[in-house]
Amino acid sequence: MILLTRKAEFSSAHFYWNPAWSEAENQRVFGKCANRQGHGHNYTLEVTVEGNIDPASGFVVDLKLLKEILEREVVSVYDHRHLNHEVPEFSTTIPTTENIAVAIWRRLVGKIPNARLQRVRVYEMPDLFADFYGEGA
Amino acid sequence: MILLTRKAEFSSAHFYWNPAWSEAENQRVFGKCANRQGHGHNYTLEVTVEGNIDPASGFVVDLKLLKEILEREVVSVYDHRHLNHEVPEFSTTIPTTENIAVAIWRRLVGKIPNARLQRVRVYEMPDLFADFYGEGA
Amino acid sequence: MILLTRKAEFSSAHFYWNPAWSEAENQRVFGKCANRQGHGHNYTLEVTVEGNIDPASGFVVDLKLLKEILEREVVSVYDHRHLNHEVPEFSTTIPTTENIAVAIWRRLVGKIPNARLQRVRVYEMPDLFADFYGEGA
Amino acid sequence: MILLTRKAEFSSAHFYWNPAWSEAENQRVFGKCANRQGHGHNYTLEVTVEGNIDPASGFVVDLKLLKEILEREVVSVYDHRHLNHEVPEFSTTIPTTENIAVAIWRRLVGKIPNARLQRVRVYEMPDLFADFYGEGA
Amino acid sequence: MILLTRKAEFSSAHFYWNPAWSEAENQRVFGKCANRQGHGHNYTLEVTVEGNIDPASGFVVDLKLLKEILEREVVSVYDHRHLNHEVPEFSTTIPTTENIAVAIWRRLVGKIPNARLQRVRVYEMPDLFADFYGEGA
Amino acid sequence: MILLTRKAEFSSAHFYWNPAWSEAENQRVFGKCANRQGHGHNYTLEVTVEGNIDPASGFVVDLKLLKEILEREVVSVYDHRHLNHEVPEFSTTIPTTENIAVAIWRRLVGKIPNARLQRVRVYEMPDLFADFYGEGA
Repeated sequence: MILLTRKAEFSSAHFYWNPAWSEAENQRVFGKCANRQGHGHNYTLEVTVEGNIDPASGFVVDLKLLKEILEREVVSVYDHRHLNHEVPEFSTTIPTTENIAVAIWRRLVGKIPNARLQRVRVYEMPDLFADFYGEGA
Repeated sequence: MILLTRKAEFSSAHFYWNPAWSEAENQRVFGKCANRQGHGHNYTLEVTVEGNIDPASGFVVDLKLLKEILEREVVSVYDHRHLNHEVPEFSTTIPTTENIAVAIWRRLVGKIPNARLQRVRVYEMPDLFADFYGEGA
Repeated sequence: MILLTRKAEFSSAHFYWNPAWSEAENQRVFGKCANRQGHGHNYTLEVTVEGNIDPASGFVVDLKLLKEILEREVVSVYDHRHLNHEVPEFSTTIPTTENIAVAIWRRLVGKIPNARLQRVRVYEMPDLFADFYGEGA
Repeated sequence: MILLTRKAEFSSAHFYWNPAWSEAENQRVFGKCANRQGHGHNYTLEVTVEGNIDPASGFVVDLKLLKEILEREVVSVYDHRHLNHEVPEFSTTIPTTENIAVAIWRRLVGKIPNARLQRVRVYEMPDLFADFYGEGA
Repeated sequence: MILLTRKAEFSSAHFYWNPAWSEAENQRVFGKCANRQGHGHNYTLEVTVEGNIDPASGFVVDLKLLKEILEREVVSVYDHRHLNHEVPEFSTTIPTTENIAVAIWRRLVGKIPNARLQRVRVYEMPDLFADFYGEGA
Repeated sequence: MILLTRKAEFSSAHFYWNPAWSEAENQRVFGKCANRQGHGHNYTLEVTVEGNIDPASGFVVDLKLLKEILEREVVSVYDHRHLNHEVPEFSTTIPTTENIAVAIWRRLVGKIPNARLQRVRVYEMPDLFADFYGEGA
């Protein structure tokens, strides 16, 4: 059993807003993030898979295939997009780092042949990141 | 004569669009960046000043003051903002990395006591940055 | 269940010295770190909390509050200080990376509302870090 | 119980090739990595050990000793070498990131006094790494 | 006038050897780098161009085009290659960081429309890099 | 003509204090840095030399020799030291980033065979650095 992690990046706009709350309550909880014009980030995604090393290839997972899956399932959907307006899961869920990690888990789980999705880590900034291991997904 | 550089960060949304061009021309030149919902970045700003070391303090420039100037003139205006919609200079200028560097130069030049603004560097991503030295500003 | 990690930094002086040992023994075990004039580091702290995502905010923990707690409990006490001389827990404990991680755990545990402290990581240098999960704290 | 991690680096050449496969099959699976002239990387190794803090030294493990062990067991063998041609374990095993992590585990396990080897992490590039915890080694 | 810099990466094998020198002389000058099996690095290339900002696009240089030129002229030739054996300029020149920077300058100069090549920087490791500005190329 | 840059690191304690000023004036100008117990940093030094490439070696400067010079002239003197108390030039000069850059220039200039010292860059933190080119040294 070994773990392999691959990083990918996407640059997206987002804002935080709970429509059930007043303007003042959104400001109090979300501060500058409540600006509905949106702001943005260079997100870094780390996807970890777990499995056995195939003795013929030395790989847990085919790296080209893993890269294609990340591109198709996540990067092509999130990159250069406004998460609140253009990504379906964030029409009803606030695109916090935590919720983005859960959403990416749901997009990837069951799609990677011969390996188990073990962790999704999302960095919003170099000093803030969320890790999701699939509990309750 | 010595140079001192201080970094600051801001997270903003933007998009690239020339209203004098057709949709197709904007797509051809700007690709994914032409999406008018906007996307975003963690920008890193490096501001370099040049001057003589004050023998009493050992400083070219008062570091707390420099930080306050960067905060007041740039970060408070750009951070957690949509550059196209909320920052005046980008209502008529496309917020490319090059144009952001020039705009920050104009915001800072002449504001730093006892030192000369020497360079403004703006990273849009770790692999792309612009340097402006004030020529033609 | 999800994990959220936030980084903070502090710049401190320290040295390693066991008063029960001879000068030679301190030199043998601690090498250059035994210089009692002290040396120093830019420490990076990563604090990880574990909890459920609040569906109203999308947060495990209020980020502004978490930042305030790190500032109040750790950064304001350690930053720009000589750990051996100015931080109480290091008057009797050697401020190694391991002991700093344990000390920060004790300062933070039980202080973060609605989330469980899961890990404290302290980097003394980019190539050396300690992780403490609270076992035996 | 606490974890301590130390990084080391080595720069090596390698290529991926399964002699039981045709040229075409090697190309299909390994792409550019199948070029038998070899290419290379700046590998980063993170070795994590687990143990109790010695109250006399404040250390889980003597840092100078740990550095010497990494140098002797891994860096002096792998650094500035062609892994396929000069490192015994890769004469019969393909030097993928996964297999390098397992090989380093086997080189280190049981060699670190007073601490348990907990994890070996190997970065081939900043965006690709493998973690091995000894399961099945 | 503004400068724009874009990074690219390539992973290559190389070694240092002067055939006019004895084995001992090569060892004395080049140390571990003289191992003719080769070793390798993740090189980082920074290419800086200088020009005026096109007011219609906000660009000094078309970023997609610049990326294509770097890919075609440099990355496709150097990446996953053994520089000594597979890249023509290094059949007669030792692939030191300095010589790689000069070789990349020669590959790029005159190929970038509407902008002047200003600097080529090559990192062999994060702690070693060469800058070439074209003097004497 | 080409430039070669090599990095080195040292971890030191320091504080800022002008003995000609009152306690209040030191506090006003230097803030937390005026704490005379000292604090510390992981400094990063970048030394750039300029010269011609020796066609026999492909080097501007012998890398092993350059590393030895940096070790002997700077790192062995500054690393794991309290700059104010243990490094002669800072008994009368405040060890600001600017003054450290000038001091390192004076320690290195004229010591590097066959190359000209072109720049000394000192990072006190990743977000603050000084560059000295020898003007007025």
